[in-house]
Amino acid sequence: MADKAFFKNTGVKTLSDVLEISGAALVQVKLNQTDSFSDVSSLNDAKPEHISFFDNVKYKDDAKTTSAGACFISPEHADILPDATIALVTKTPYKAYALTAQSYYPEPNPDAGISAQAHIDPSATIADGVTIEAGAVIKAGADIGENSWIESNAVIGKNVKIGARCRVGVAVTVSHAIIKDDVRIYTGARIGQDGFGFAIDPSGHIKVPQLGRVIINEHCEIGANTTIDRGAGPDTIIGQGTWIDNLVQIAHNVQIGRGCVIVAHVGISGSTTIGDFTVLAGQVGVAGHLKIGSGVQVGAQSGVMRNIPDGETHLGTPAMKIRDKMKQIAYLNKIVGRR
Amino acid sequence: MADKAFFKNTGVKTLSDVLEISGAALVQVKLNQTDSFSDVSSLNDAKPEHISFFDNVKYKDDAKTTSAGACFISPEHADILPDATIALVTKTPYKAYALTAQSYYPEPNPDAGISAQAHIDPSATIADGVTIEAGAVIKAGADIGENSWIESNAVIGKNVKIGARCRVGVAVTVSHAIIKDDVRIYTGARIGQDGFGFAIDPSGHIKVPQLGRVIINEHCEIGANTTIDRGAGPDTIIGQGTWIDNLVQIAHNVQIGRGCVIVAHVGISGSTTIGDFTVLAGQVGVAGHLKIGSGVQVGAQSGVMRNIPDGETHLGTPAMKIRDKMKQIAYLNKIVGRR
Amino acid sequence: MADKAFFKNTGVKTLSDVLEISGAALVQVKLNQTDSFSDVSSLNDAKPEHISFFDNVKYKDDAKTTSAGACFISPEHADILPDATIALVTKTPYKAYALTAQSYYPEPNPDAGISAQAHIDPSATIADGVTIEAGAVIKAGADIGENSWIESNAVIGKNVKIGARCRVGVAVTVSHAIIKDDVRIYTGARIGQDGFGFAIDPSGHIKVPQLGRVIINEHCEIGANTTIDRGAGPDTIIGQGTWIDNLVQIAHNVQIGRGCVIVAHVGISGSTTIGDFTVLAGQVGVAGHLKIGSGVQVGAQSGVMRNIPDGETHLGTPAMKIRDKMKQIAYLNKIVGRR
Repeated sequence: MADKAFFKNTGVKTLSDVLEISGAALVQVKLNQTDSFSDVSSLNDAKPEHISFFDNVKYKDDAKTTSAGACFISPEHADILPDATIALVTKTPYKAYALTAQSYYPEPNPDAGISAQAHIDPSATIADGVTIEAGAVIKAGADIGENSWIESNAVIGKNVKIGARCRVGVAVTVSHAIIKDDVRIYTGARIGQDGFGFAIDPSGHIKVPQLGRVIINEHCEIGANTTIDRGAGPDTIIGQGTWIDNLVQIAHNVQIGRGCVIVAHVGISGSTTIGDFTVLAGQVGVAGHLKIGSGVQVGAQSGVMRNIPDGETHLGTPAMKIRDKMKQIAYLNKIVGRR
Repeated sequence: MADKAFFKNTGVKTLSDVLEISGAALVQVKLNQTDSFSDVSSLNDAKPEHISFFDNVKYKDDAKTTSAGACFISPEHADILPDATIALVTKTPYKAYALTAQSYYPEPNPDAGISAQAHIDPSATIADGVTIEAGAVIKAGADIGENSWIESNAVIGKNVKIGARCRVGVAVTVSHAIIKDDVRIYTGARIGQDGFGFAIDPSGHIKVPQLGRVIINEHCEIGANTTIDRGAGPDTIIGQGTWIDNLVQIAHNVQIGRGCVIVAHVGISGSTTIGDFTVLAGQVGVAGHLKIGSGVQVGAQSGVMRNIPDGETHLGTPAMKIRDKMKQIAYLNKIVGRR
Repeated sequence: MADKAFFKNTGVKTLSDVLEISGAALVQVKLNQTDSFSDVSSLNDAKPEHISFFDNVKYKDDAKTTSAGACFISPEHADILPDATIALVTKTPYKAYALTAQSYYPEPNPDAGISAQAHIDPSATIADGVTIEAGAVIKAGADIGENSWIESNAVIGKNVKIGARCRVGVAVTVSHAIIKDDVRIYTGARIGQDGFGFAIDPSGHIKVPQLGRVIINEHCEIGANTTIDRGAGPDTIIGQGTWIDNLVQIAHNVQIGRGCVIVAHVGISGSTTIGDFTVLAGQVGVAGHLKIGSGVQVGAQSGVMRNIPDGETHLGTPAMKIRDKMKQIAYLNKIVGRR
């Protein structure tokens, strides 16, 4: 179903291919079910030659009426699918779908090579297999690792190191940074500019030189137009496999652990540290110099003003344990008679 | 009054020109009033040869003391203007002003032509009358419609279609998208990058290929540094005539109807649909998979966590009907004795 | 301690150098203390040849155990430092540190000169000592002042004036603007695009030509990916020495005074005026057409819906005097039994 102008499909896969790719188990195949599939699709749009997934109960009605030939689904819902849809049973339907969709649509390979219209300083080091597109600028001493892809109009600053198999999107800028392998940075993200550091003074604010770097570890994704300032002295560090959405602000000296998820418009103030596998939902703000633990979840728009221990879920401004916040919301709704 | 370095004025207009352009009616002209006008201006800055408008009661004192030669004004306020100011009476003073200002300052025409310093793939299709400025990059298979204007350092991705009479601002990036006619995209907006889609997994988040597109319909305006992610499978769609301000985040699969107004810093999460003529004020956040109706208004900074039916006005986090929220605010202010 | 790949250190300084640079006073030097210093560093990372500072009580334990050779510190804390650390006593330790760090790491000088890979209109005026990097675009009639530095892929619009000693960062865009001396604009900021102005109309929103400019006065700093729209008629004005962080939205006609601090993700709506030395913390939203005084402080995530007199501190949505808001928070916490 994907528009061929933009996406290239690797072709038909058999039921056994799909089971192997996805790790899903098979519920017995019934009469008149398909055994080969040309594409993935959403429940609503799927045709009999497509594979879909059911992962969010909001879409239960769509699952009941889908025309998909097969559908990844959890064991407890496997019986809701129509007869013509094969239930591909797995405890992680979305993961199974992700792996299958990747097999139909692997990441595109760039048209390898260095554009004559890129501006590359002769002192830069460009490894084998690197693609650099028209309008990109690679400054003195920069080092681009094997098979990395620098898209049009991206600018890689002096002595910046980009690891192997990275993709630096269109119009991204990177300075004062070390980017490890397999990192992807989306369009317009700003990495490594000075943090917002100054001494307030009646004669005019006095700039504090920002002498740290940005370190982005392996397998991170950094969203479009997101800004990550370099450290003031210590480094700003993004841990392995952390995913950051669009328009996020990461201030100087922030250290984020592994596997975190930082949703759009989040702002994290200077010198705050965050553990591993923590999730900050959209538009959350976190004050500076705090310690947010591992496995923490913070609800959308919350304002975090105090440390949060490992594993807690917080909500509200000021953020508090979600149970307490829900009680406060319920209390006000009751007393005022919200309809 | 506009700085001639930046704006070109089409010249003096007579009172009858202005009435025709604006559709305003005329209150009887008094002695010593002007009958031709060289420019538009604000109430405070206007001189006798200028036309102004009064539309916001906050500026009533300015209207009483303006030196403008003429002023668009609603019937109920027409008598507050000074004697030397002609009342140009209309129920829609701001619209009348907009039309008049457009006649003094029509949108600039670009210096038509293709810059030798643009990087255009030979397989791109460039229609008649297109302007492409220095540093712009047009990739393989892209299709730019008649009289469209691609500004400096903008990057148009592979096979992207841009309609007629579009203006794609400086440093904008577009990929995986179909842009219809008469769309304007402001500086630094990011259209069509991958949505934030992955299956969370202990071994590392697994990317879900983002196989949809962005469709921007006719007459939309997309603000500076705004990000619109492409769909995960379905498309992300912006309806005809919808205006989006700066630094807005539109996630994958979001569908927005016609004539909506989305103010700065709004974030709309994935798969949410919004009807027609709905207004989201600044910094509003909307959760994913919701249905927001037509004619809805959501107050600034609200956090929308549930569906909203047509025509309702909501406020607060969590967002509720504005009357209920105002009661809650009043209750707390009363009980605590806010001064 | 700063990475030599990115920062160039001016070399060892003696104790008397440091006292002169910083204006700090000296507590009597003890045996075994160092009298020359090679670098600045944070309390935790500092070695005996380094100078550090103690300014935030959260880091008191770090001050007690630092290995720094010297440390800027306020008189009341001077006795907490280890014996081997010289107390450099000052009422403004952070300012003293800033000045000292500047002396070790002065702002880098660009590799002066005009890149052959920049695109400069022949009618532009380029003063002596200007640096223009590869991929930058300078349009017709633009005027770049002495010793200013236009980084890669920045685009300076028609007739824009940039003062002396400015630094316009990578991928910045400026149009319809006058930038005074000593201004620094960080990567990806958007200055001077049209404000979000239109008359709502059933036939489609009608654009109001945006006929003002952006004026940025001396010594301002404008953060990465921040957007400052030009005025609708009046100008949008940023006062001398005001610092604006990343991803901030400044709407048309906003006027900000001198020495203000505007933190990341703040949005200021159209025609609002702000006095001098006012601080808006992160994610604050300010409605349009308001008057915010001088010396005002607004806490993070607050939503300002009314004028604020000089000198007040406000918090919350809707924003109110901080004392009242704190009472409301305490009341709810008490009644619901927050733990």
